[in-house]
Amino acid sequence: MERPNVPESARMRFRARATTRWSDEDNQGVLNNAVYMTLFEEARLAYFRDLLAVNQFPFLLAQTNVLFVAPGRGGAEVEIECATLELGTTSFTQAYRVRDIATGRVWAEAEARLVCYDPTTNAKRPIPTELRAIVAARDGK
Amino acid sequence: MERPNVPESARMRFRARATTRWSDEDNQGVLNNAVYMTLFEEARLAYFRDLLAVNQFPFLLAQTNVLFVAPGRGGAEVEIECATLELGTTSFTQAYRVRDIATGRVWAEAEARLVCYDPTTNAKRPIPTELRAIVAARDGK
Amino acid sequence: MERPNVPESARMRFRARATTRWSDEDNQGVLNNAVYMTLFEEARLAYFRDLLAVNQFPFLLAQTNVLFVAPGRGGAEVEIECATLELGTTSFTQAYRVRDIATGRVWAEAEARLVCYDPTTNAKRPIPTELRAIVAARDGK
Amino acid sequence: MERPNVPESARMRFRARATTRWSDEDNQGVLNNAVYMTLFEEARLAYFRDLLAVNQFPFLLAQTNVLFVAPGRGGAEVEIECATLELGTTSFTQAYRVRDIATGRVWAEAEARLVCYDPTTNAKRPIPTELRAIVAARDGK
Repeated sequence: MERPNVPESARMRFRARATTRWSDEDNQGVLNNAVYMTLFEEARLAYFRDLLAVNQFPFLLAQTNVLFVAPGRGGAEVEIECATLELGTTSFTQAYRVRDIATGRVWAEAEARLVCYDPTTNAKRPIPTELRAIVAARDGK
Repeated sequence: MERPNVPESARMRFRARATTRWSDEDNQGVLNNAVYMTLFEEARLAYFRDLLAVNQFPFLLAQTNVLFVAPGRGGAEVEIECATLELGTTSFTQAYRVRDIATGRVWAEAEARLVCYDPTTNAKRPIPTELRAIVAARDGK
Repeated sequence: MERPNVPESARMRFRARATTRWSDEDNQGVLNNAVYMTLFEEARLAYFRDLLAVNQFPFLLAQTNVLFVAPGRGGAEVEIECATLELGTTSFTQAYRVRDIATGRVWAEAEARLVCYDPTTNAKRPIPTELRAIVAARDGK
Repeated sequence: MERPNVPESARMRFRARATTRWSDEDNQGVLNNAVYMTLFEEARLAYFRDLLAVNQFPFLLAQTNVLFVAPGRGGAEVEIECATLELGTTSFTQAYRVRDIATGRVWAEAEARLVCYDPTTNAKRPIPTELRAIVAARDGK
């Protein structure tokens, strides 16, 4: 299985903050793997909220490749790096990296492919031109 | 991003059952992406419970590559195919496929790499010999 | 704090089934308390799906009083008793009891008050007459 | 059903902060009721972390009575008031109030009874004397 393609931190310009919850730990005493999907989702939404000043962006997650680097904990402040890697016609890819702020330790990295869709018809649609321009300005794509 | 390597259904010998919950849907009215991680986890645990007649198996998820094929729903019975693909020294890979039983539709497929570890020291350790034999008998590895 | 008013099992006519998940356990190794809210919700939806043959019923949870009787576990089949206790003009009360099927042990009991509302205006509204008749026939209210 | 006994805000001396997540909303577009249990739990742990400078306190939730005051949202900063109301021999009661910081609106209030237990034997045990003194100093009990 190929590792996710995640640029080094210096090239990930956007950083979201999130807090893990005590109940995010499972009975192995570590952050349950499903919680990372929520952390990446929070970063993705913060990235677009920051760019677009709207609270919602109509995309669906099409694929994600996640590498678990070190065991995570509940009750921690984390920073999630987020960058857009490629902008296609109807889809784009992003990369994420979750870092525990207290220890500086990376917990997980991921790559994801998102598809733009029309929520009224559920059909794929091209990425809006203005979004394309804004993302290009942010991440140089 | 490479697609996960998931064999065709006929070659996936183990099938777990699970039920999605109403609250598994997010405000887009579809199964939230994090829930799929839980469904794969349920299948993985059922697979080892079936093989080993023990309720727990000391492994950690090291990587997973998930392809979201169609929007899932809450309140549905699903079948999750599960097979071991490769057995290494301290890690092994598995594949999963979630299918909605009512419609027969595939919702997601994934590949995962799991690492055996010693819960007292948290160090990696070789896959136990008896487990290796049992998995080989099940999935021909 | 008053205990929830939950009739004895013989007087609770409806029973839903649900399965707890491995990740429903928290790092104390027991079913996290929030999961019980989900189990009661699953029972409530099953109760109305059974009565109304529709998948959704526009109500909001207004209050719930939950008694945790014994520690619950993940990976268990549970039965959830559900009955309507009182039907008011715009709200009604229900009672729930979660029982582990393997051991017969009661894990939790709860009482809840639900309010009917109009999802387009978000205003309270009277319980529909046909629903009133159907619930009365089921639970003798 | 009796309402939970929750003192007015001026008498609730401890305040925890938490952030709701986008996926905490269910398909009705509001914070799912189970999430409130997690918010109360976060406040409870912060209260004891603040008092005891330890990360864990061995108690179990025995009962909780929750009043849902207004629909909550994901992606919001909330403040959770927390106070201990009564200290018994082996159990104590607390009150909580969740307030959306952006709007000042109260979303939910709750009362809870917690039981001290010995995690090695799972038996109830008296509240430790030093904890009793610390809580009394904080909340005048």
